[in-house]
Amino acid sequence: MQFHHHGYVSGNPKVEPAAGVGIDRPDDLPDQIDVLIVGAGPAGVTAAAQLSQFPNVNTRLIESRPHRLEVGQADGIQARSVETFQAFGFAGAITEEAYRITEMAVWRPDPDKPSHIARASVPVDDPQGISEFPHLIVNQARVQDYFVEFMQNSPARIRPDYGIEFVHVENDGDPDYPLTVTLRDTSAGREGEQRTVRAKYLVGCDGAHSKVRKAIGREMRGQQAAHAWGVVDALAVSDFPDIRKKCIIQSKAGGNILHIPREGGHLFRMYVDLGEVATDDASRSIRETSLEQTVAKANEILHPYSIDIRDIGRYSVYEVGHRLTNKFDDVDDPATQTPNVLITGDACHTHSAKAGQGMNVSIQDGFNLGWKLGYVVDGRSPAALLNTYSEERQEVAQNLIDFDREWSTLMATREEDFDDPGQLEDFYVKTAEFPAGFMTEYKPSLITGETTYQALASGFPIGKRFKSAPVVRVCDANPLQLGHQARADGRWRIYVFADSQAAGSNTALADWADWLISSPQSPVVAYTPKDRDTNHIFDVKVVYPQAHADVAIETVSKAFMPRTGPFELVDYENVFALDPAADIFERRGIDPAKGALVIVRPDQYVAHVLPLGATDELAAFFKPILLEPGASRR
Amino acid sequence: MQFHHHGYVSGNPKVEPAAGVGIDRPDDLPDQIDVLIVGAGPAGVTAAAQLSQFPNVNTRLIESRPHRLEVGQADGIQARSVETFQAFGFAGAITEEAYRITEMAVWRPDPDKPSHIARASVPVDDPQGISEFPHLIVNQARVQDYFVEFMQNSPARIRPDYGIEFVHVENDGDPDYPLTVTLRDTSAGREGEQRTVRAKYLVGCDGAHSKVRKAIGREMRGQQAAHAWGVVDALAVSDFPDIRKKCIIQSKAGGNILHIPREGGHLFRMYVDLGEVATDDASRSIRETSLEQTVAKANEILHPYSIDIRDIGRYSVYEVGHRLTNKFDDVDDPATQTPNVLITGDACHTHSAKAGQGMNVSIQDGFNLGWKLGYVVDGRSPAALLNTYSEERQEVAQNLIDFDREWSTLMATREEDFDDPGQLEDFYVKTAEFPAGFMTEYKPSLITGETTYQALASGFPIGKRFKSAPVVRVCDANPLQLGHQARADGRWRIYVFADSQAAGSNTALADWADWLISSPQSPVVAYTPKDRDTNHIFDVKVVYPQAHADVAIETVSKAFMPRTGPFELVDYENVFALDPAADIFERRGIDPAKGALVIVRPDQYVAHVLPLGATDELAAFFKPILLEPGASRR
Ligand SMILES: Cc1cc2nc3c(=O)[nH]c(=O)nc-3n(C[C@H](O)[C@H](O)[C@H](O)COP(=O)(O)OP(=O)(O)OC[C@H]3O[C@@H](n4cnc5c(N)ncnc54)[C@H](O)[C@@H]3O)c2cc1C
Ligand SMILES: Cc1cc2nc3c(=O)[nH]c(=O)nc-3n(C[C@H](O)[C@H](O)[C@H](O)COP(=O)(O)OP(=O)(O)OC[C@H]3O[C@@H](n4cnc5c(N)ncnc54)[C@H](O)[C@@H]3O)c2cc1C
Repeated sequence: MQFHHHGYVSGNPKVEPAAGVGIDRPDDLPDQIDVLIVGAGPAGVTAAAQLSQFPNVNTRLIESRPHRLEVGQADGIQARSVETFQAFGFAGAITEEAYRITEMAVWRPDPDKPSHIARASVPVDDPQGISEFPHLIVNQARVQDYFVEFMQNSPARIRPDYGIEFVHVENDGDPDYPLTVTLRDTSAGREGEQRTVRAKYLVGCDGAHSKVRKAIGREMRGQQAAHAWGVVDALAVSDFPDIRKKCIIQSKAGGNILHIPREGGHLFRMYVDLGEVATDDASRSIRETSLEQTVAKANEILHPYSIDIRDIGRYSVYEVGHRLTNKFDDVDDPATQTPNVLITGDACHTHSAKAGQGMNVSIQDGFNLGWKLGYVVDGRSPAALLNTYSEERQEVAQNLIDFDREWSTLMATREEDFDDPGQLEDFYVKTAEFPAGFMTEYKPSLITGETTYQALASGFPIGKRFKSAPVVRVCDANPLQLGHQARADGRWRIYVFADSQAAGSNTALADWADWLISSPQSPVVAYTPKDRDTNHIFDVKVVYPQAHADVAIETVSKAFMPRTGPFELVDYENVFALDPAADIFERRGIDPAKGALVIVRPDQYVAHVLPLGATDELAAFFKPILLEPGASRR
Repeated sequence: MQFHHHGYVSGNPKVEPAAGVGIDRPDDLPDQIDVLIVGAGPAGVTAAAQLSQFPNVNTRLIESRPHRLEVGQADGIQARSVETFQAFGFAGAITEEAYRITEMAVWRPDPDKPSHIARASVPVDDPQGISEFPHLIVNQARVQDYFVEFMQNSPARIRPDYGIEFVHVENDGDPDYPLTVTLRDTSAGREGEQRTVRAKYLVGCDGAHSKVRKAIGREMRGQQAAHAWGVVDALAVSDFPDIRKKCIIQSKAGGNILHIPREGGHLFRMYVDLGEVATDDASRSIRETSLEQTVAKANEILHPYSIDIRDIGRYSVYEVGHRLTNKFDDVDDPATQTPNVLITGDACHTHSAKAGQGMNVSIQDGFNLGWKLGYVVDGRSPAALLNTYSEERQEVAQNLIDFDREWSTLMATREEDFDDPGQLEDFYVKTAEFPAGFMTEYKPSLITGETTYQALASGFPIGKRFKSAPVVRVCDANPLQLGHQARADGRWRIYVFADSQAAGSNTALADWADWLISSPQSPVVAYTPKDRDTNHIFDVKVVYPQAHADVAIETVSKAFMPRTGPFELVDYENVFALDPAADIFERRGIDPAKGALVIVRPDQYVAHVLPLGATDELAAFFKPILLEPGASRR
């Protein structure tokens, strides 16, 4: 964590100095807003948290609930989400309070006594070690709390505006604030009061019944039937031996349970399968399944074991189907139009509860969209950047639904109907990257390069998220994870993997580094505002293929040790060396004889791989993405 | 982290339910106080944080400053302190914001050009891997903030009472509140107002100029001369290559610097040696060394490198000598008396700045004393327990001073005067356990057993702190550090290292476990109040010498799975198995054929090692330490 560079910080260093709109931010909603986010669920808080790092952008986050979420809905946190939390500075804290899944127990009818369930297998949760981050279970409300804490501590000082409901939006084509948004108060004493505000952008993070989606005429398509689950968060005493493990439990009679231990050592959640619900509502009775009925059903499935409920944290019948809109914005022709209204998360895609995707994919929607809005409103990028949001995320949602459907079908299949009894476990293990959240791979686009030079860094696939590996920081010999140094601060990252010549003697690299900080063609020079530190838009990090003791920091180019803050202090923390125990060059397929440049987007996806020393290609890549300061964004 | 067992917790789980005095705690100091702590430095906040877990004890913490400390004094955090922070729940958070020392650079006159300094060696900071915790540098003010946060979130809801100064104490022998304490207001508007309160115990954590020490007539003894350092916290630009590493720098002219990088990536602290200051004050001019003089001296020593100061966080001439009082309480004859006034930290011992002990040893004083006061005031232990505080901590301080003196002498020795040029590095490496804070070893006493059965667990030396090792929690297959599961909740811990028979078939262990929870002789039965959970005083954990998959939790004795809270839920989190990659039995010298019992104090020191199945010895050990509920404490 870096601080003190603007002078001595006495208190919590996570509280950054307020800037821009964060200074004297009004408590009430102003009449004109740059980005109005509707809904403080996972998607909304993530987008707002990212935008809180853009203090030139006036972002407001409205939420119809009059207060924070108290009892969460989702609880499954994929490794990719924890990786995202790391960038927002709270992976450590939330991991400490969460339940961690390390293995899953599969229970099936006992072959010798099919009326009893018996433990069939216990596959490890992440057998391939896909991520250094854990798979967690924690209340969605707490996830939201941490994002809210981050946005409050950020320069823009964003706080959710609770008790305000989105009603309607109109676009009158005004060049500055095209949107007129109608809002209604829901807070005690002011219920029903309406007002309008003008906005540049409206982001619908308002969940499955999204009014923003309806306002722009997008429709959810998909399965006619939804699946219903009795979802019980319970404190109970039980003789079921795996009560503190994630379990899939299938009984002879066909009933099945997804059992999830929760944070704190005592609470658990059971998803008791209630079957398909037709949309014509013939199955109304399923929707009205009582807690008592759900618990009775759970006890039948668990036979010979049982649960004796002592307290209920939450009970609901959760009904969800695979649904998706065809576009995530208000643009019909991206070739000629750019969006003003965008939708995220459950507002544009929903998933079966079993694969536990909803919260995670919504967070990634918010992360994908947040920086793009920041860049466009701040004048750093053309508005066309916003078209990449729907382009990228709609496909991810479609893939997820395809996977989810396959998954749910398998989950609902009775044992005797499997071709091969190990089919379910096989599937679970084989597809581990998908549920962990790492299978997203963006196609070549405005912000994703072609794979021309992919072979130079084969372990950093273009379009996939930058996968961390261990390194040693040269200035202080600290062993660190390279990827974890990337904060959600909205900056692009250029990782320079140096070739094996020693730092001081590497004249080719030194020349390129000079170009990077002095040539008018260099993106760093071209796109960094003159009154800002050179690392304002681009965070440039170098990794040497030597041990840290062999890199003499005084010989490293000053392109990799920028001056920061009012005192023009040297930032030493971007220069890395090999961790001899875990060679990052080897692990990520980089030949130390050649080196490579790896360009990473603000949301941690690899945008491009280029040869070490590339100048024209680097300049060409950023030309359509970024605007020179002061240039018009239209 | 365990929670939800009293019902669903929606918010931050670190906020425990208020209890006892924490419910409706008055903002103003009451007239009668159980434990009055003077001074919110490291010792005071640690003692108060520990007492905040005893909600039957009315503890108040007064501090003459009208607000929190803003610019810290000490900054060196030993691994033992981080281990302590772990028990208070903030090791992870503070590590994230701290600077971490991994190696130290030694700079000496360049043999070829002695007017220049040159890097002589770079010893690794913890070559033996003494601890899984790091050696950190962070502002003392932040350490205090974290302890204050803990006490505010604890059942007793303690907040420091800022702006109140201790003036005097009298003991009139009253059986309930023997102490009359005179206090003076220092807060704006009320300056100088005096009042008295009555207290049972007074704890002087009021630093080197302690008025509490003076009030009980204890005197600091030791060296006549103190050593003076110019201490500069600076933001600077420098060409010195190791500016982000801990360094010891000795120049030809004899000047020397201890250089310490600080948290945040930019700030550093230099201790510039100003030499000895005689107490007769002949050397007044040293005490008045200006910042400019200190920086000039630093630049001379650093030649040919230099520092260009851009901003100063703090500057002082810090003058400290090795001083110690002969007793840390108001008792002259421990055989017949018990203390009412106790002193801690700098109030009774001071150390040279170079070894960086002050804050660390003060924290351990507070941790040692906190639970003892809690037990005595809560009626769990006889008052004689309090005599062990001075007995244990005075010796620790004496040992530390002996070490410190040797260290400082070495540090001040010029290169050419060493018998052997590697002497300093050798000493640094050889004595690593001492500065890391792990060499404390309490002698047999009321609370420390004899070494009769030490051989059963040779890696848990009686009197030393319980050294953690990896294990796997059976209920959820989580790989964990056993020691890190111990919270600073004031409980005694009994670690049961089971012998190699399987859990269900081990009838000897099962019989002993039955005895533990049912026999009137068992300390668990004898000392746990009837209206409390069975784990209220003793936290009993079992470790099996099998892999987790081989321990069937349904066969484990219920002595190791106690019922907790109003719903009588099962606590599954005390049953552990081997981590096959790091066998705790092997690492801690326990023969799995025999097993062992390891008894650990609330402040994490091993109190005793006994044979597995011991009953009489276990009962006999606790008899003088604990009182049966309802028994008189006199
Ligand atoms: C019982 C249950 C269990 C679930 N289990 C899981 C799971 O295990 N794993 C998983 O990953 N996902 C799970 N999900 C799904 C998950 O909760 C959602 O996918 C996720 O919350 C979607 O995030 P979101 O931000 O898109 O929308 P939401 O979380 O639905 O947030 C939308 C927000 O918008 C607000 N809002 C709505 N309309 C308006 C308006 N007009 N004006 C202002 N504010 C408005 C709402 O109050 C809400 O706060 C579960 C959902 C439920 C209900
Ligand atoms: C410049 C400097 C540098 C140091 N560097 C290091 C280092 O690198 N490493 C290290 O380990 N140690 C270092 N120390 C020492 C370290 O700060 C002390 O050893 C440590 O703070 C002692 O803790 P304490 O709780 O005993 O007392 P203190 O931290 O001194 O706290 C005493 C508290 O009591 C309050 N107080 C005093 N009198 C009264 C009264 N009458 N009534 C009410 N309140 C009162 C004070 O305001 C203060 O808050 C340094 C100290 C200084 C001054």
